[in-house]
Amino acid sequence: VAGSRLGLAPGGEFDLIRSFFPDTASAARADIPVGVGDDCAVVAGAGIAISCDMSVEGVHFRRDWLDDREVGFRAAASALSDLAAVAARPIGLLAALALPEHGAQECARALMRGITEAAATVGAAVLGGDVTRTEGPLVIDITVVGEAGEPVLRSGAAAGDEFWVTGLLGGAAVAVSQLLGEESVDPEARVRFAAPEPRTREAVWLRERGVLRSLVDLSDGLAGDAAHIAAASGVAIVLDADAVPIHPAALRATSADHALRLALGGGEDYELCFSAAPGAVAVVAEAFAREFGVPLTRVGRVEAGEGVHLEGRGVARQPLAFGGFQHFTGEHG
Amino acid sequence: VAGSRLGLAPGGEFDLIRSFFPDTASAARADIPVGVGDDCAVVAGAGIAISCDMSVEGVHFRRDWLDDREVGFRAAASALSDLAAVAARPIGLLAALALPEHGAQECARALMRGITEAAATVGAAVLGGDVTRTEGPLVIDITVVGEAGEPVLRSGAAAGDEFWVTGLLGGAAVAVSQLLGEESVDPEARVRFAAPEPRTREAVWLRERGVLRSLVDLSDGLAGDAAHIAAASGVAIVLDADAVPIHPAALRATSADHALRLALGGGEDYELCFSAAPGAVAVVAEAFAREFGVPLTRVGRVEAGEGVHLEGRGVARQPLAFGGFQHFTGEHG
Repeated sequence: VAGSRLGLAPGGEFDLIRSFFPDTASAARADIPVGVGDDCAVVAGAGIAISCDMSVEGVHFRRDWLDDREVGFRAAASALSDLAAVAARPIGLLAALALPEHGAQECARALMRGITEAAATVGAAVLGGDVTRTEGPLVIDITVVGEAGEPVLRSGAAAGDEFWVTGLLGGAAVAVSQLLGEESVDPEARVRFAAPEPRTREAVWLRERGVLRSLVDLSDGLAGDAAHIAAASGVAIVLDADAVPIHPAALRATSADHALRLALGGGEDYELCFSAAPGAVAVVAEAFAREFGVPLTRVGRVEAGEGVHLEGRGVARQPLAFGGFQHFTGEHG
Repeated sequence: VAGSRLGLAPGGEFDLIRSFFPDTASAARADIPVGVGDDCAVVAGAGIAISCDMSVEGVHFRRDWLDDREVGFRAAASALSDLAAVAARPIGLLAALALPEHGAQECARALMRGITEAAATVGAAVLGGDVTRTEGPLVIDITVVGEAGEPVLRSGAAAGDEFWVTGLLGGAAVAVSQLLGEESVDPEARVRFAAPEPRTREAVWLRERGVLRSLVDLSDGLAGDAAHIAAASGVAIVLDADAVPIHPAALRATSADHALRLALGGGEDYELCFSAAPGAVAVVAEAFAREFGVPLTRVGRVEAGEGVHLEGRGVARQPLAFGGFQHFTGEHG
């Protein structure tokens, strides 16, 4: 913890909080030669995937919406989803916390409980982190580390590929919309928002069967994340509005059109979207369903061109703006 | 960037700022199979050392003391020092920034300039990061990544070892003390504070020559960081007060006794301290001096027992409290 002795405020409480980290140390693992407690952790593997994801109170979460354990879980799960997005096998994570002085100890304990739980769901260990105080809002930065000897990138899509998603979309967006509107929150939607499930096992499974040509996770919404693949691969992606798998909470909460909007633009579902050679998914679809109980849905195709386009629902094919849905109906919520 | 579409404030400016990252992409390197721009970076090496270091405005730095480029440089350099502390060869870093809305673009550019410069001094690339807004103080979390097939840990010291430090100590503490006192700041001391030099090359060089038995970097001060080695190795470390290499800025600024206090307890010098088998350093000392122009000083020895002790300057041997110097003179600044 560099810089903690500037003289501005050392804070014995924060030395204590730092001691929470060894409590969550990883068991002996061949892929973690050095765990918590030295200046660095050391991990081993054919290729090591790394990403970080910073969450700020009032921007990414509100502590009147989620308790601190849930805030930690969600921050870690959404960061771990970046490992799913390159089909990496999770090894561990680092958690850096800037804690407001009031209630810092309790807050840190609850955050670390949620972070450790989220890590455990995908076989990741807590490798270390940092703790400091702040005079501002709570800030959490999660760095995820995984093995990715053969990462699947955004750039591998080719014209003729099929375009697929896992799971059902729009559930998290329904929860956010209901929380913002101070309506009662659909319990299924709330789970999708508070406890997202990073699809790391699913991504590795699909990679090992040679299915994946390009891959991202859905953090910004299907329209926006498909656009990442389109841009990186230099292709167009055409989505079929009639095929998008909409979460039942979205269909319960709103009109079919608005539910589609939430599914395409809502973000934070942390499902996977990927392109695959024609017929490649069909071969493994039944085994995937047995293994994971998560639907796989073909939502479109890859063509020569650029950008993301929407067709179906009786309207003509039209481009979707990067990151959103606003050009579909002319409105933007 | 998970969670950025919660609806609380998407912020097109921050999408723009995110685009700063590809500008600093690494050149093609065998140890970076995937650089900036996908969901994760991927690094390759015999063992990958990882650590993170979070800095918060008002706690770890003040923007009236350093400009934003310096803030970025210092945050990155102090984080990179954790790689030196396990004798890892730097590969790269991730930079997560929470930026206050006002002047966010300029701030991010300046921070990234400093971060990139600090990384370049030790051969590290910018591998990625995250950018978000905050309603609170500026927060920077730097995750460093290096190759450490044979990491040198805190736990390797044995009774009979010699105890050594690189460089001159107390310079950064003089600057902090002068800044806090609103005195004019010694320019040499200011450099030590604003632009620390992570000793990664020195550490790898010493490891390759088999010199290092245990190692940490000096972030909390010699007394405190030696205590990490003592605790992890289950040994006592005895420091010789007459041997501690004190930075000339400390000797210029204050009494000899207070300068020693700054050198032992001041922190943030980001030098190395390590134990070595008797005579091992002597064999390489001349070549080290030629290679790096940085002094190597034997400051003590390792004994059976526990804790850090101080002797010399005509006083009896006495224990130093963990992290500080207060027991030496009975006072504590």
